Amino acid sequence: MTPQEITVKMALQSWDIQVSRASSLFDSLTDEQLWQEIAPGRNRGVYLVGHLIVVNEGLLKIFGLEERLHADWDDAFLRNPDKAGLDFPSTTVLRQAWTDVHAKLSEHFKNLSADSWFQRHQSMTDEDFAKDPARNKLSVLLNRTAHMAYHLGQVALIKK
Amino acid sequence: MTPQEITVKMALQSWDIQVSRASSLFDSLTDEQLWQEIAPGRNRGVYLVGHLIVVNEGLLKIFGLEERLHADWDDAFLRNPDKAGLDFPSTTVLRQAWTDVHAKLSEHFKNLSADSWFQRHQSMTDEDFAKDPARNKLSVLLNRTAHMAYHLGQVALIKK
Repeated sequence: MTPQEITVKMALQSWDIQVSRASSLFDSLTDEQLWQEIAPGRNRGVYLVGHLIVVNEGLLKIFGLEERLHADWDDAFLRNPDKAGLDFPSTTVLRQAWTDVHAKLSEHFKNLSADSWFQRHQSMTDEDFAKDPARNKLSVLLNRTAHMAYHLGQVALIKK
Repeated sequence: MTPQEITVKMALQSWDIQVSRASSLFDSLTDEQLWQEIAPGRNRGVYLVGHLIVVNEGLLKIFGLEERLHADWDDAFLRNPDKAGLDFPSTTVLRQAWTDVHAKLSEHFKNLSADSWFQRHQSMTDEDFAKDPARNKLSVLLNRTAHMAYHLGQVALIKK
């Protein structure tokens, strides 16, 4: 394996671990639990599931892979805080979307060459990238992995 | 920059971001707040700060850099859950330890060559490593970064 290939493998493993932990956690929670707050007065489980769906599926666009599946959910889960009075999809729809989005990402990730992970993403200009080649697709994946872990630690608090 | 160098830079940036967010968060919390539970009946802030200190400073040993600074804290923050009746260091001592450990890690990390990040760590045999070269020092750093983010999301709940 080349250094690039080893690196991509590591980063994808790290991503997969968080996705798989999140999936197990969400599966272990009942619909009623998902509607609970992670702590008194804080976000509810459903909000964080929705938030992670829209943020993670954002990679489809940032990496130029395909159109997003739930761009219409950004108002509810990204641009506004929880309990802003907006309609949420049902937990059934959210659970299915979680699975669909990550299956789709996983499929795309498998087909990306190691080299392409080291190339710039769509939100960067060629100029910026020339200045800092560490701001590539892989670095976005690392940040999104940490972001997922951050909220996962919160949703885990619902579990008794 | 070589692909290895770019990769190491990315992974260290990702690590530094979490360390720096954690430092700001801990600084923003009063001692009284650190003694609060992140949610009713759950871990207290001090436990999670101590937990992150011992887990992160574990890298000193796993990477073969130097002896750990607070190995005697493992009973309180790693082998036992919070509120197990064990004595905790004061928040003053914990805050200082957080700073010291990460300054020391940062110094070591700066001096590690890109190549050495791709080499096996002390908990792995040469044989295992030959089978899976993605289980290198850098992959340990990625996992520890996600671990830090996970608990950071929890400590952040103390902040009102």
